Amino acid sequence: MTAGPQVTLADVQAAAERIAAHVRTTPMWPSRVLSELAGVPVFLKCENLQRTGSFKPRGAINMLGSIERPDGVVAASAGNHAQAVALAASALGIPATVVVPAETPLAKQRATEGYGADLVRVDGPLSLAIEHAQALAEERALVFISPFDHPAIVAGQGTVGLEIVEQTPEVETVFVPAGGGGLLAGVAVAVKALRPEARVVGVQTQAMPGIVASLEAGEPRVVDAARTIADGAGVAGPSALTLGLIERFVDDVVTVSEDEIAQAVLFLVERARLVIEGAGALGVAALLGGVAPSGPTVVVLSGGNIDINLLGRIVERGLLHEGRRHRLTIAAANVPGELARITSAVAEAGGNIIEVGHELVTAELPVGVALITLQLEVADNEAFELLVRRLVDSGLVRSELTDLTTPAAVAMPT
Amino acid sequence: MTAGPQVTLADVQAAAERIAAHVRTTPMWPSRVLSELAGVPVFLKCENLQRTGSFKPRGAINMLGSIERPDGVVAASAGNHAQAVALAASALGIPATVVVPAETPLAKQRATEGYGADLVRVDGPLSLAIEHAQALAEERALVFISPFDHPAIVAGQGTVGLEIVEQTPEVETVFVPAGGGGLLAGVAVAVKALRPEARVVGVQTQAMPGIVASLEAGEPRVVDAARTIADGAGVAGPSALTLGLIERFVDDVVTVSEDEIAQAVLFLVERARLVIEGAGALGVAALLGGVAPSGPTVVVLSGGNIDINLLGRIVERGLLHEGRRHRLTIAAANVPGELARITSAVAEAGGNIIEVGHELVTAELPVGVALITLQLEVADNEAFELLVRRLVDSGLVRSELTDLTTPAAVAMPT
Repeated sequence: MTAGPQVTLADVQAAAERIAAHVRTTPMWPSRVLSELAGVPVFLKCENLQRTGSFKPRGAINMLGSIERPDGVVAASAGNHAQAVALAASALGIPATVVVPAETPLAKQRATEGYGADLVRVDGPLSLAIEHAQALAEERALVFISPFDHPAIVAGQGTVGLEIVEQTPEVETVFVPAGGGGLLAGVAVAVKALRPEARVVGVQTQAMPGIVASLEAGEPRVVDAARTIADGAGVAGPSALTLGLIERFVDDVVTVSEDEIAQAVLFLVERARLVIEGAGALGVAALLGGVAPSGPTVVVLSGGNIDINLLGRIVERGLLHEGRRHRLTIAAANVPGELARITSAVAEAGGNIIEVGHELVTAELPVGVALITLQLEVADNEAFELLVRRLVDSGLVRSELTDLTTPAAVAMPT
Repeated sequence: MTAGPQVTLADVQAAAERIAAHVRTTPMWPSRVLSELAGVPVFLKCENLQRTGSFKPRGAINMLGSIERPDGVVAASAGNHAQAVALAASALGIPATVVVPAETPLAKQRATEGYGADLVRVDGPLSLAIEHAQALAEERALVFISPFDHPAIVAGQGTVGLEIVEQTPEVETVFVPAGGGGLLAGVAVAVKALRPEARVVGVQTQAMPGIVASLEAGEPRVVDAARTIADGAGVAGPSALTLGLIERFVDDVVTVSEDEIAQAVLFLVERARLVIEGAGALGVAALLGGVAPSGPTVVVLSGGNIDINLLGRIVERGLLHEGRRHRLTIAAANVPGELARITSAVAEAGGNIIEVGHELVTAELPVGVALITLQLEVADNEAFELLVRRLVDSGLVRSELTDLTTPAAVAMPT
């Protein structure tokens, strides 16, 4: 690596002072369930409870507070960086323009406007929005705020690391979500300076492992854009600055699958009562996926701005994956009371019915037969098989349609 | 009211010492969005981050710690009290039996067993489970732990009030969820003793307003059991103890509707990144519903143990209510590529398609016509109407089926 601009503990400490009035010291919260699973004490650093719902304002406020006051700033982002720049600019009384891809979830667009920024919507991917923002910066003499490629941004994000060591001085392992590597680099600078014996582990999504690819290549590389639940970490690759710091201060960078991320989000909702976005849950995904920590462990939950529709789908997917949600299609006699009898039988067999569909007329069914579709909650796959067997034994399921009444055909877990 | 056993500030302070090693001081978290909506600074007291996910261990641990050590304890509960008693007993090394209605969500049953309690499942409503638990207590010489009707339980819950005054000494209004009134009574005792000028407002669900009915009658009354999203506050009525304290120390008790509770749960997930159960969100529901606070306001979020399926349905319901989710049924030409053309047109009109149903054969439809059902996310109702108008203008929607193609008939928000 070439020696570019660096970030030191002193920079991070200066950042902490600069941003103190504008950001919150977020809770460090013990998790009994994760501690039991991992076999070491696990603490969650709740940056989802930071202002704007992610760690991003730390860097944006530090950068705006450490450069000469500009006439205006511009940034491009589909998510957390947009709100962070809007908040930072409004906190310091500077006009902000944020360029967003037009398909950005409406809630995030509204939130950014809510912090007082002017929004410019651009059709196409984030890369086009970035080009547009850089053109605007040139044209109108605005300062362009990168999401991670600036020493002041990295130093600002590093304040999370200061809080980690202050709140859990005994920490031995730190898991940090990573996309462009700003948070990972900053946290590593701070933690390694204050507690050199602690391990810092970065976590990326397998869908876009730009840092892993760059570490292997020994220089910044970009990976192809890909759809990922961890959209907040969906960055093509690190910059020379963040990669250089990661090479020096980070012990390991691991990747997790989309399924592991979805399970982590569900786990955090259900067991930790915290709303965490996909990128924010990368560290928990690594823990649940079996990456073994040593000693007291801090997992950085970097943000909570998950699109509510996506959250709904993740919950659904997680329940299906765990065998707790099933769809059951039954061919039954079309006689009065039959639906009631079937739903009672399901309830007796321990199934919780979430949704019922009842179809009388389709081309495929003989007259006198109704198709009943049940969305069911059960304990697990085994309980579901037991339930199906009971229904078949009860005779409520029409036996002449054998292909639909054998458990294999009746049970259609989606 | 007759003068029964009382609870004083000294009792609450003694409880705080007794339980300190076993419970957490939960965060008091400022909410920018709620502050803007209410026009006063609003803070959220996050008891969803308490051990077991609700405030209940405070009372259970205080009671077990203040009575003569029993050979075993028994309780009946469909939810938070079950886990609290299990935790309290295991913390003090006492065997615990918890009687649960058989239809209790599986996640809650598992969590209770996870804290080491023996589970007894009883068919029928909670009242039957309570009878069974009381019978067990007599039979096996166990101590029965009531969810709210004991001075030590009320004093334990009151420690939330101590923390409120300590964390926000400027508080002027406190909103507290209320079912049987243990938390409300305890918080009111503490807050009124330390800061008499603060108002304490209890919030009940309209579905089961037992405290409101009792206050009107001037004596404990019970209301009929009813289904409510706030199942944790689904209690028939207060006890003489809690009612007496509420009459003395609580300024007002208000009720909120099921819709208001659902909106509050959704609001907290989306804007505060916190998972809060229906009962836990009663205070926020009151705020959002327009109950005006004066001065700095604390809203107690009493718990976060929401069944994940219920959370999914609440999110869905909330999106529908806000006009952000619509179901659109379209009669279209059954020709190749038509579905693609329609979905593109929807996307261009700003609609985000979540689910597509495509039905070719039903008795009601002429041959050559397909019924397409779209689940859509849009900004609001206005955006949806615009989208429907565009689709009709585009000619993609078959005009001969006029009853299905006029906006009013095509648009079927569910």
